[in-house]
Amino acid sequence: MKIAVDAMGGDYAPGVVVEGLAMALYQLPDYEYVLVGHKNKINFYLEKYGIADHPRLSVYHAESVVEMSEPSVSSLRGKKNSSITACAMLLKQKQVDAMVTPGHTGATVAATKVLVRTLPGVDRPALGASMPSSKARFLLMDAGANTECTVVNLVQFAIMGSVYARYLYGMERPRVGLISVGGEDIKGNSLTKEAFGYLDRLPINFVGNVEPDDTISNCEADVIICDGFTGNVFLKCCEGLAKATGFWLKQFLAKNAIRYAGAVLARNAFAELKQLGSSEALGGAPLLGVNGICIIGHGSSSPLAVRNAIRMAGECVEFDLNGQIVQAIAEMHCTTSELEQQIREASGKRIN
Amino acid sequence: MKIAVDAMGGDYAPGVVVEGLAMALYQLPDYEYVLVGHKNKINFYLEKYGIADHPRLSVYHAESVVEMSEPSVSSLRGKKNSSITACAMLLKQKQVDAMVTPGHTGATVAATKVLVRTLPGVDRPALGASMPSSKARFLLMDAGANTECTVVNLVQFAIMGSVYARYLYGMERPRVGLISVGGEDIKGNSLTKEAFGYLDRLPINFVGNVEPDDTISNCEADVIICDGFTGNVFLKCCEGLAKATGFWLKQFLAKNAIRYAGAVLARNAFAELKQLGSSEALGGAPLLGVNGICIIGHGSSSPLAVRNAIRMAGECVEFDLNGQIVQAIAEMHCTTSELEQQIREASGKRIN
Repeated sequence: MKIAVDAMGGDYAPGVVVEGLAMALYQLPDYEYVLVGHKNKINFYLEKYGIADHPRLSVYHAESVVEMSEPSVSSLRGKKNSSITACAMLLKQKQVDAMVTPGHTGATVAATKVLVRTLPGVDRPALGASMPSSKARFLLMDAGANTECTVVNLVQFAIMGSVYARYLYGMERPRVGLISVGGEDIKGNSLTKEAFGYLDRLPINFVGNVEPDDTISNCEADVIICDGFTGNVFLKCCEGLAKATGFWLKQFLAKNAIRYAGAVLARNAFAELKQLGSSEALGGAPLLGVNGICIIGHGSSSPLAVRNAIRMAGECVEFDLNGQIVQAIAEMHCTTSELEQQIREASGKRIN
Repeated sequence: MKIAVDAMGGDYAPGVVVEGLAMALYQLPDYEYVLVGHKNKINFYLEKYGIADHPRLSVYHAESVVEMSEPSVSSLRGKKNSSITACAMLLKQKQVDAMVTPGHTGATVAATKVLVRTLPGVDRPALGASMPSSKARFLLMDAGANTECTVVNLVQFAIMGSVYARYLYGMERPRVGLISVGGEDIKGNSLTKEAFGYLDRLPINFVGNVEPDDTISNCEADVIICDGFTGNVFLKCCEGLAKATGFWLKQFLAKNAIRYAGAVLARNAFAELKQLGSSEALGGAPLLGVNGICIIGHGSSSPLAVRNAIRMAGECVEFDLNGQIVQAIAEMHCTTSELEQQIREASGKRIN
């Protein structure tokens, strides 16, 4: 198996990526790697981490980088020779089985959608982010790949998320919930209300509408489905509040000497709390539905996070995640054309 | 000035509401009050808190209650004699200047929309929730009154929020941001992209797209605008994560005796953190755009929260919040019909 790794992605590229790759080379000996990026900028780090002539590593030169501040379409226009675009090309040409980038999410989505395309029967890819709740982790889908979604997309996200959660959480029948503004069936916007009926008929473990607070504090579902705009707001609210909570705690704990002494004694508890929100353990979020495994890491990934994203990519290939997604979608008659047909028939019935 | 208070709303009604009203009677001596609810259930508490024959208090009997678990339309169908519906009727008939309920948000929105109607020129009311960021508080609008919104709604929410923030935060020119999935103008869904152009031309302090994480951790805007589905997800993510963080902290602090000792020393810091998320200081969120002041408290309101919601209602009347909203919308040529006309013209230009 071969995995392409985007050396230039993320806030601390390429040093952190090469260090993470070096860990992977020694700890994950079954895979071969293609490091994609600017040779002159990579070489120093390849020497530094002693992997310059590693037999399971090749380097693929990419002239440019899509910077985090650039618009998503840069990977397709203007910067066609970027490291992200090169990874997507390698994946398209089946020169690699998977790609890993801690880079620009939007640019990766754009490049893979256009170059690698989606799996047979799948309309749009979705980003699956694994997040902590007070009981267990849950998968948020779509965490931001599509700002606009249709009923077809939500139904396919539910199936893809259900398959992926089987691998990620080792569950037989993960509970799938639809994010809404109230638990009752009738609550929601027009998209979620229409999607509810289709989800309810699927042979997945659909638990109905779920609210964000119940999901986070009670883990009422293992997979929660929404459009990518809502999912991105969900993700960023949690990131923002986690950051602000850290700030508030520091401020309140520093108010007097007694509190400060308490904070010193309890510091390991705060470290554990911080670790919960860290992306390190998983390393990345898969872009599910792309015709090839694509794992997107956080821009601030550590070397360990890069190593773990690489491991996740390899495991998704071994699990035959994409084969299982295609099979599930076909078995449930939920390919894009089948679903569109069902929706047309239903709206015809409503009109008559 | 007369304020209607829904005695039956919230999780601890009517005891907590009557206790809060008793505080208001003594501490806010300029207002008169109409307590709305089931007389038999209220009387015990009126006696208990010594306000049974208070000269500035009258009781208005309402036979039923919209329970928190009931659908929103209950206030209009089935339970037309509920305390929420009665409050809305009193407001409609101008028998009171404002209403306060710690009850069912959806039922209050439904009852006021249909009975009290919106302010002249305003299409839909929006719930404005004041939330903590690491620097200052910010106003989230719409926090859940409308699951489906148009460009007209978002533009009017921005103006209403801007006027309300002048009162609430005492700011001359509050910064208004549009919630999106990226800071650049081009980011967002079709609703936010279209709304951006209209917001950018308004004579308010529009700061462009803002992301939830930057808002919460850096307070990049004083008022943030979104549709009510997104706003409700925003609010409930924060509520859920705050609750989960409390749970995690307790768990991690109880892991060994040293941490536990630290937690005891630092306990006041945790109490301050908890207080940040409490609705007590404000007491409630206004339903802006209704033709009458309507403050909705949290279902778990304490007596102090009820007192503060009553104070907020009185202050909004004194500030002439609604008069100022109507004036701002008229001056900016942003009445529903004017905005719809502008949108029609713009789409005509795009087609030609």
